[in-house]
Amino acid sequence: MNRYISEFLGTFFLVFAGTGAVIANTVNPGTVTPLGIGIVFGLIVMVIIYTIGEYSGAHINPAVTIAFWSCGRFAGKDVLPYIIAQCLGAIVASLVLRFLFGLVGSLGGTAPYSGGTPFQSFVLEVILTSLLMYTVMCVSTGSKEVGTLAGIAIGGLIAMEAIFAGPICGASMNPARSLGPALVSGQMDVLWVYIVAPILGALLGVVFWKISRNNPSPVQENI
Amino acid sequence: MNRYISEFLGTFFLVFAGTGAVIANTVNPGTVTPLGIGIVFGLIVMVIIYTIGEYSGAHINPAVTIAFWSCGRFAGKDVLPYIIAQCLGAIVASLVLRFLFGLVGSLGGTAPYSGGTPFQSFVLEVILTSLLMYTVMCVSTGSKEVGTLAGIAIGGLIAMEAIFAGPICGASMNPARSLGPALVSGQMDVLWVYIVAPILGALLGVVFWKISRNNPSPVQENI
Amino acid sequence: MNRYISEFLGTFFLVFAGTGAVIANTVNPGTVTPLGIGIVFGLIVMVIIYTIGEYSGAHINPAVTIAFWSCGRFAGKDVLPYIIAQCLGAIVASLVLRFLFGLVGSLGGTAPYSGGTPFQSFVLEVILTSLLMYTVMCVSTGSKEVGTLAGIAIGGLIAMEAIFAGPICGASMNPARSLGPALVSGQMDVLWVYIVAPILGALLGVVFWKISRNNPSPVQENI
Amino acid sequence: MNRYISEFLGTFFLVFAGTGAVIANTVNPGTVTPLGIGIVFGLIVMVIIYTIGEYSGAHINPAVTIAFWSCGRFAGKDVLPYIIAQCLGAIVASLVLRFLFGLVGSLGGTAPYSGGTPFQSFVLEVILTSLLMYTVMCVSTGSKEVGTLAGIAIGGLIAMEAIFAGPICGASMNPARSLGPALVSGQMDVLWVYIVAPILGALLGVVFWKISRNNPSPVQENI
Repeated sequence: MNRYISEFLGTFFLVFAGTGAVIANTVNPGTVTPLGIGIVFGLIVMVIIYTIGEYSGAHINPAVTIAFWSCGRFAGKDVLPYIIAQCLGAIVASLVLRFLFGLVGSLGGTAPYSGGTPFQSFVLEVILTSLLMYTVMCVSTGSKEVGTLAGIAIGGLIAMEAIFAGPICGASMNPARSLGPALVSGQMDVLWVYIVAPILGALLGVVFWKISRNNPSPVQENI
Repeated sequence: MNRYISEFLGTFFLVFAGTGAVIANTVNPGTVTPLGIGIVFGLIVMVIIYTIGEYSGAHINPAVTIAFWSCGRFAGKDVLPYIIAQCLGAIVASLVLRFLFGLVGSLGGTAPYSGGTPFQSFVLEVILTSLLMYTVMCVSTGSKEVGTLAGIAIGGLIAMEAIFAGPICGASMNPARSLGPALVSGQMDVLWVYIVAPILGALLGVVFWKISRNNPSPVQENI
Repeated sequence: MNRYISEFLGTFFLVFAGTGAVIANTVNPGTVTPLGIGIVFGLIVMVIIYTIGEYSGAHINPAVTIAFWSCGRFAGKDVLPYIIAQCLGAIVASLVLRFLFGLVGSLGGTAPYSGGTPFQSFVLEVILTSLLMYTVMCVSTGSKEVGTLAGIAIGGLIAMEAIFAGPICGASMNPARSLGPALVSGQMDVLWVYIVAPILGALLGVVFWKISRNNPSPVQENI
Repeated sequence: MNRYISEFLGTFFLVFAGTGAVIANTVNPGTVTPLGIGIVFGLIVMVIIYTIGEYSGAHINPAVTIAFWSCGRFAGKDVLPYIIAQCLGAIVASLVLRFLFGLVGSLGGTAPYSGGTPFQSFVLEVILTSLLMYTVMCVSTGSKEVGTLAGIAIGGLIAMEAIFAGPICGASMNPARSLGPALVSGQMDVLWVYIVAPILGALLGVVFWKISRNNPSPVQENI
């Protein structure tokens, strides 16, 4: 039960801070800036990994939970409770933000930018999430030293992807992160993109990990 | 006594750098930017944790000191000296900044933005500080490896919250940080928000920690 | 074989994210900003080092591979396969970006800025890559603790050089990173600068390492 | 001798990157931005600490060398060679930048901003350098784990001070960093401020360390 509470709190704070940054930049324009929004997303993920990583594993993302389960690294009976806790955390975060700021735009929901298409965003989300899950698999199965730095590596990855792809496709990589604002703002037209693509991408990331990890001749020059 | 001096110096440099960034952005407009101000707040907290963390614990925040005491992790006899040292450090920092720059605005004091209300800022400060204290409790009671990275985790958290919420409510999370500029600039109208809300938030963060830490089935997939 | 796949994937993601940031800032102007592009380049390098560092060494750069080989720290038989995997990864990344966004400018290719010359860019690329390789040699041969932080040190270095020199010379430091966009966009006028200069610079970095490492009187004051 | 070469190279790259960022922002306006310049200064210091820290201690700053010597942590016979290597590195960096870009402004030299005075800058430089040396002393004498993170802590400190105080006083904190551009651009009016103030500040930082380290009742709540 405590692990579910951790996932609930972790996803609550992820959506509260991340989409809160989008909302803050709308109500007080030019302060946070798109660059700042990307940095906020990266830092909150880093913080949550160091906060609840030792309690629940800090998935805070249904696509990550499903991908861990797909390769036998997460128990099937916990998949649904984790996803429910994550989605509830995201929805409550969007409700609190709507209560505090009113219905500002799409409450930080994800959508293709005006010059783009759902197809473009779909492909981007698949690629972005594949790198996320590839990195998650590598750092969680590598040396202990690298595992300790997982929060920095994965937080840095989220910041990087949010900075460069956020202005194009939203850089969701996380069905729960897109579900909360979509449900609470009632803007669910392209929500399917941000539910299907991250899950496909996360499964692809596991494949990348499987084909690159089995190293018969370990190098000595690791940097 | 040395620990009190450490807290005095730590809070002095926190307020000197953080509110100094606000003042610098006012007297030389557009240079620091709100994003830069948030980054400065995060980095100075990280730096102070690595500088005095092994001397005084690097609370540099009365709300953190009170919350540690509330759950039996800090001796009652040290609470008042710590708070006095922190408040003195903040006040001296604001005095030095006023001496160097004159009375610039509110000397970097915290207040709701023009489109907001004290109530909105109050709720935000409670939530922001609850995550701060939740993270502080988790990293200070977790594995040694994560504890070593506490400065990065907590500094990253402060940067993140200052970037997204600073332009809305000031993102104080710290009664001493708000007291110094308010006293020295004489602008104390909403000071109560920034004294009461962070303390409530920090106590809430301890509750979050209590309900998520007791993990009967530790996961193996920690990332 | 797995190591070559790792280098392919690593260089694919490097070019996809880094030049993708340049393209995103072109199609949705003012969102990523030059500062954000530099941060993206630094973070993707950090991420890739922690992702595939323990599999292939995370060279993701022909100049680094050649320099490691030049000082006997990399097997000659692996040099060509590594370079081929890196170049293929970069080319595929540029093809995917062209498929997603069309032929936007030079697809994030590197070139001297309008006020500069190829000679100026050549000298800059030599100096920038010499520091890159100097740092790579030092952190990969130093203490284990510093080695663990290699991703942060080298990622920070790439971010730093991309922020300050990117707007002048492109801050490539990597023949594969420049080859992909140049081939796929057909703009290969100055490509030779970004193939020759990084290789010379990386060899120079090895020289810097050789003349500074042999320390007969180790200091005790290391900070 | 190798240690002197390390200090020469370290200070060369510090001034080349840091003041290079100022020059790049002048010749290609609005690209690096003042925030980016501060980040560049912080990252190059972090990189140099991980690159030459285990060879020479990575002082790359005469004020740090003098302060280490003042408290018996650095041999007197090495003080002058270190300072000469540092100043030579800075001067060569400014010569290379002048060769590459011509005489752009003050070549990134430090001076009070148009609304400020030498006195204001003097006081700021004393305070900024006192925190630098206070942090250097604490992390270099604390636990091994924190020592490993010294590059991140001190690099973060430099970034923070350069972001908030750079636009006011230049945020030099380093006589060599100010000497190079001043000599090569011939603008030496206020150079004395940036030679005297950092040295005084560094000595003050040692005092701060002495009065806060001697902790008779070590806390258990270190975070």
